[in-house]
Amino acid sequence: MAKIAKKYLEVHNDKIVERGYHPERHMVSESLFAQSNEYMGARAYFDEGISAAKSLRGVYFNGIYDYSREVLNTGYKGIATRTHFMVNSHDIFALELVINKEKLDLNKVKFKDFYRELSFHSGEYIREFTWQLPTGNVKVRIHRLLSLTNPHLALQKISLSSKSTADVRLTFSTHNKLKQWGGDGYFNDLAIGKEHHFLVSETTFTKQKLYTKNDFKTTLPEKQYKKSALSGVRTRFSFTLMPNEEVIFTRYITNLTSREFPSFKRGLNALYTEARKYIKYDYEYYKAANIKFYAKLNAVSHIDIIGNDEDLQGVRYSIFNLNSTYHGYSPHNNLGAKGLTGEAYSGHAFWDSETYCFAYYLFNNREAAKDLLLFRYNQLAQAKARAKDLDCRGACFPIATLNGEEGCTLWQHASLQQQPTTAVNYALYHYYRVTNDFTFMKEYGLELLKETCLFLLDRGQFDHDNNYFSYYGVMGPDEFKMMVNHNAYTNVLAKFSFDFFLHMLKKLSNDPDFEKVKAKLNIHVDTLRQMKNASQKMFIPYDDETKLFEQNAGFFTLPHIEIDKIPDHEFPLYSNWTYDRIYRGDMIKQPDVLMFLFLFNSHYDESIKRANYDYYEPKTIHESSLSPSIHSIFASELGYNDAALDFFAYASRLDLDDYNNNTNEGLHLTSMAATWMNIVYGFGGFRSDGHLYKLAPTLPARWQGYSFRLSFPNTLLEVKFTTNELVLKVEGEPLKILLYDEEIEIVDTYAKALN
Amino acid sequence: MAKIAKKYLEVHNDKIVERGYHPERHMVSESLFAQSNEYMGARAYFDEGISAAKSLRGVYFNGIYDYSREVLNTGYKGIATRTHFMVNSHDIFALELVINKEKLDLNKVKFKDFYRELSFHSGEYIREFTWQLPTGNVKVRIHRLLSLTNPHLALQKISLSSKSTADVRLTFSTHNKLKQWGGDGYFNDLAIGKEHHFLVSETTFTKQKLYTKNDFKTTLPEKQYKKSALSGVRTRFSFTLMPNEEVIFTRYITNLTSREFPSFKRGLNALYTEARKYIKYDYEYYKAANIKFYAKLNAVSHIDIIGNDEDLQGVRYSIFNLNSTYHGYSPHNNLGAKGLTGEAYSGHAFWDSETYCFAYYLFNNREAAKDLLLFRYNQLAQAKARAKDLDCRGACFPIATLNGEEGCTLWQHASLQQQPTTAVNYALYHYYRVTNDFTFMKEYGLELLKETCLFLLDRGQFDHDNNYFSYYGVMGPDEFKMMVNHNAYTNVLAKFSFDFFLHMLKKLSNDPDFEKVKAKLNIHVDTLRQMKNASQKMFIPYDDETKLFEQNAGFFTLPHIEIDKIPDHEFPLYSNWTYDRIYRGDMIKQPDVLMFLFLFNSHYDESIKRANYDYYEPKTIHESSLSPSIHSIFASELGYNDAALDFFAYASRLDLDDYNNNTNEGLHLTSMAATWMNIVYGFGGFRSDGHLYKLAPTLPARWQGYSFRLSFPNTLLEVKFTTNELVLKVEGEPLKILLYDEEIEIVDTYAKALN
Repeated sequence: MAKIAKKYLEVHNDKIVERGYHPERHMVSESLFAQSNEYMGARAYFDEGISAAKSLRGVYFNGIYDYSREVLNTGYKGIATRTHFMVNSHDIFALELVINKEKLDLNKVKFKDFYRELSFHSGEYIREFTWQLPTGNVKVRIHRLLSLTNPHLALQKISLSSKSTADVRLTFSTHNKLKQWGGDGYFNDLAIGKEHHFLVSETTFTKQKLYTKNDFKTTLPEKQYKKSALSGVRTRFSFTLMPNEEVIFTRYITNLTSREFPSFKRGLNALYTEARKYIKYDYEYYKAANIKFYAKLNAVSHIDIIGNDEDLQGVRYSIFNLNSTYHGYSPHNNLGAKGLTGEAYSGHAFWDSETYCFAYYLFNNREAAKDLLLFRYNQLAQAKARAKDLDCRGACFPIATLNGEEGCTLWQHASLQQQPTTAVNYALYHYYRVTNDFTFMKEYGLELLKETCLFLLDRGQFDHDNNYFSYYGVMGPDEFKMMVNHNAYTNVLAKFSFDFFLHMLKKLSNDPDFEKVKAKLNIHVDTLRQMKNASQKMFIPYDDETKLFEQNAGFFTLPHIEIDKIPDHEFPLYSNWTYDRIYRGDMIKQPDVLMFLFLFNSHYDESIKRANYDYYEPKTIHESSLSPSIHSIFASELGYNDAALDFFAYASRLDLDDYNNNTNEGLHLTSMAATWMNIVYGFGGFRSDGHLYKLAPTLPARWQGYSFRLSFPNTLLEVKFTTNELVLKVEGEPLKILLYDEEIEIVDTYAKALN
Repeated sequence: MAKIAKKYLEVHNDKIVERGYHPERHMVSESLFAQSNEYMGARAYFDEGISAAKSLRGVYFNGIYDYSREVLNTGYKGIATRTHFMVNSHDIFALELVINKEKLDLNKVKFKDFYRELSFHSGEYIREFTWQLPTGNVKVRIHRLLSLTNPHLALQKISLSSKSTADVRLTFSTHNKLKQWGGDGYFNDLAIGKEHHFLVSETTFTKQKLYTKNDFKTTLPEKQYKKSALSGVRTRFSFTLMPNEEVIFTRYITNLTSREFPSFKRGLNALYTEARKYIKYDYEYYKAANIKFYAKLNAVSHIDIIGNDEDLQGVRYSIFNLNSTYHGYSPHNNLGAKGLTGEAYSGHAFWDSETYCFAYYLFNNREAAKDLLLFRYNQLAQAKARAKDLDCRGACFPIATLNGEEGCTLWQHASLQQQPTTAVNYALYHYYRVTNDFTFMKEYGLELLKETCLFLLDRGQFDHDNNYFSYYGVMGPDEFKMMVNHNAYTNVLAKFSFDFFLHMLKKLSNDPDFEKVKAKLNIHVDTLRQMKNASQKMFIPYDDETKLFEQNAGFFTLPHIEIDKIPDHEFPLYSNWTYDRIYRGDMIKQPDVLMFLFLFNSHYDESIKRANYDYYEPKTIHESSLSPSIHSIFASELGYNDAALDFFAYASRLDLDDYNNNTNEGLHLTSMAATWMNIVYGFGGFRSDGHLYKLAPTLPARWQGYSFRLSFPNTLLEVKFTTNELVLKVEGEPLKILLYDEEIEIVDTYAKALN
């Protein structure tokens, strides 16, 4: 992993700061300083634009998507012909600033003292600089806020001050001409309001509607400015800036989408009335509300590290972004691989949501975790249609989706990867273990399990002589193996799915709602017998002697690829190696066997984990951003402390230091959950799949201490680890755990001195 | 193989005849009555067009192609982004016939006595009918001829006669608006000549040019008709048809392409001069020349069958089409899977050329066989570029091509199938065995072998422990297995390639041209050592006990698919089964292990062939039209006489009886070579890969006898088999052969009485 850090931000523990403008990192900063409030997200593009710099002006609304104009038709069955994607929508922050006839463009004007920050406390983004006009300097400060308590509202605050008099023309505009993937956009005008400054647009194919309205407040007395509505949706303020007087404009940007507002059917007046609800207070009010909102989430998700501020910033930045992007606002939302910060991966949610993000939410914000499950439940109809496309009964969850349909047009991923489906089952299992919420299982979980297990039953096959059940022609988590048979991960997760479903059904048989739920499930006893049989006969390729699981049939004899000898310029391999070559060796993209050993960690002996880590890790190139954290966690468990830190350093600052040279496209949102896991499951040694929660904290060499918190249904646990002492504190009910394999009960505080 | 015959043609042994018009088979007839002369091909569309009927007006020139407008970009390396295809070119036979103000359209006018035929003697296509006009009947007869001796020339002859007077307006037109794949065409106007009736067009991307000029002759004296040039390229003749007088118009259609004529650079006059060369004689002259041309080819390729006229017609139709489509006109031509009869398979040549067609030409028309090899040699530069795309040295021949570039945009075929490359080597080997032509090897063969072997060396890999060499991630001949390892066919053919190359090099070392050729080849001795090593360590998955070759790693334990239980409506599977499902079982599309057992038949014991046939045939659904013949050949050898006939019946009349319901798209040209092999290698028991040629004729139950001929460099052999007698006759030098495993020498005639 010869990845190089590109450092240009200041190190703080509660914000990120760029001091002095770095034009060569313009798009990277657009991603890093991006804001989200789950409902929407905006990249930190320059409000006024900039000539010459490569920029992605991006504003995205969760769940507002369209189908691609391009239709692929292979003529084969079961292959998605058309992708869908999160659309780049209204440019809500656009403005033009002209002072003394000079137009602001940081590529052309003279300026100094450029500074910007994104605060983890408030989510506020501030950009300021001194514009050196021939007629004297003007201090410009632009604030942006996406309200978390009032998510329809985005705020922009412009502050101007100068020592000399200046003629100012400030024009706010709203339009839907943002590019999609660098080309034509998908939003079309439906209506515009010049006087009331609003724009209603509609997506091309899905006909989703978006209403954006602006209201303005200013510190200037009404007589001292001229306000005019220009063509398009533009509102202009002209005024004279008096010496040593700060003038502030606050722009209230209210956004409504047809996704949640039936008002769209009732016409523009109804939208207007609705929009007015969200702009009652001033900027500071909404900022304070944001601070309170984040503080509440941080009461659990707060992490401290003593001894390395860069690590701390990386971790806090990750948590800040996770909390911003997804926090239980709606069970119709999910987390795209890049969150709401860019167009790469089309805004799609992957199985990352269940295998990486879910644990974070489960132990920090259980309502949000539940929403992730409900998101899948709400898309069960589409998953059933997809299973049918694949000649199976039941439900097959898509590899990449926004609306529940398969968004991946590459059959080799969409048709071969069973991970999305089994991941839903794993998340259900994880949720149930922690919450014991059988009501949820009865209402949603059992139905999900029934449909996914039906699919898994049909997609699997018995071998020629009916000796064992297995999956043929699959792609496991390691995407460098295609069309393989007997992928251990797939088989282990399918077996687990059948077992968990049957176990839940058994539990149901003693439940007062048994008859009702049974009738709803409507599953034949023969089918259950088949599932039991499939589980019992599941082929798990394990060698007792070496303790190795074979990743898939034939893996052990695959040609060896010396991954350390691959020249740096050949990465990423997908672009530089001929396509099929990637699949023809023992090189691994990301954890596969190690992935199920992680998910069911407590089920396997350390010796098994060691054997498989020692065998598979050296073959892994970590081309997925999700790979290093899982390896760091195993390295911690196995005492490979240097490796644990190496993997962690890369994972924690993946975007801040742009290790993969693609932060410009957006943040690796789901990897941020892996960063959290890296602390809690890795150094903290937390395990949540055994009969008791387990902790086995270790202290990375370059830290003097660290702490984190975990929220359980009736207990908040704080783990504090320093060079001298391990302190475990609970709020709420006492907690029984395994501490380094020793069972203890923490009633209030448990402290253990360390040598 | 529950395929159904659709019979509507008369059975003759030297032509096909449709009596009475069958509108529901309109497009099928367009294919069946299509004509080719290697230079060009034309479907038997109605010259005057027809309303309502589904028709494909198609005229194609060998090697005149274009790139598709559609560009696929997967973002992955080594995947062709754009296919190329044979373009549907000038509509050279278009005409309009108006008599007494009624326009000819067989969908609208009254007619009787419809008759058409295509003669195997001359290649002439005749269509005639009586047009029942209110003013009296008119006999219409339209002849078409593509000259084989003068391939730039197509002829059309219209004959009209009537018992009553009739006003006739006959308009001949030429245009380039034929549809491609049912959509927009790719030819654009460059120049038109109204008076001289010519059209020059150019393809959209490749900028290939086509010049078509018309000249007319008529039996009418000049005074009795009016000739006018109309807008576009249209020439009209208006005249009065007198009672009981036959009027004939002959249309000379001369075609020149920029492919062979530098005249295109010298302007229209030069083209005009060139075109005039080809129209010296009358229709009958060119027809007689065609008859002579076919007769010469038939002196070898003539086959007779006593006792089943349908079989005979099928076989002769196949030979007629092979001889028409490809006969040694140019080493820049090849045979597309559908010849020049339709747009399916884009006019591409596949490995069928070397593994199916090559044997036909080798023993019937050696110059044409040599051309097939030269075609590949001429495209070596493109094959080398393709190998580079695939991260290998050497040359990789494309799976589908016209111009030498990979025309298949499906990576799973184009990147995984090594058959096209190894097939070239097999054809070289076959050619050399029969001709002993070492001059050819020195000039072309060794270079081909060197480049293909380099590619095969790089594309193969050693297993993890360097125990064996093999091919990983391939698709063998059985296209129902994808991304498999250790495909026996691939490995056997690669091993053979290395061995043959090394053997030829050894032979070269005793040749006077040794130094010269060695310098040209410029291959390092280490590379040769590596090839030797790869051959010696080649993994050939064979089980001594069962005598089975395993088709690919894991085949024996694949889930079993009961192919007889697949409902008829699920065929073709590609359209009705979800894509990946096709690959997940022991169902086979076409011979794979049996294919190399066929190619190297003499190298394997009968017991091995029997074991593998018995094992693999029941798993084979013969979805490829090339499959049945190979199985028929094995069935003959193994004494499964019923099966041999069953497979043959299907193969011999595949198109005539439209077994696959797709003859409308064009003829299965390359399958026709398999039909020939089915007679000669199948019932004739001919083998050409052992140390002596072998014959082992058997008589199919429904025949009383059959005969065929084989041409060797200095000998023409005739094999005549009846119920009483086997007679072998040679012209030229005596021939030593194995007859039913007994070595005999045929000096003049060898006869053997049969009980």
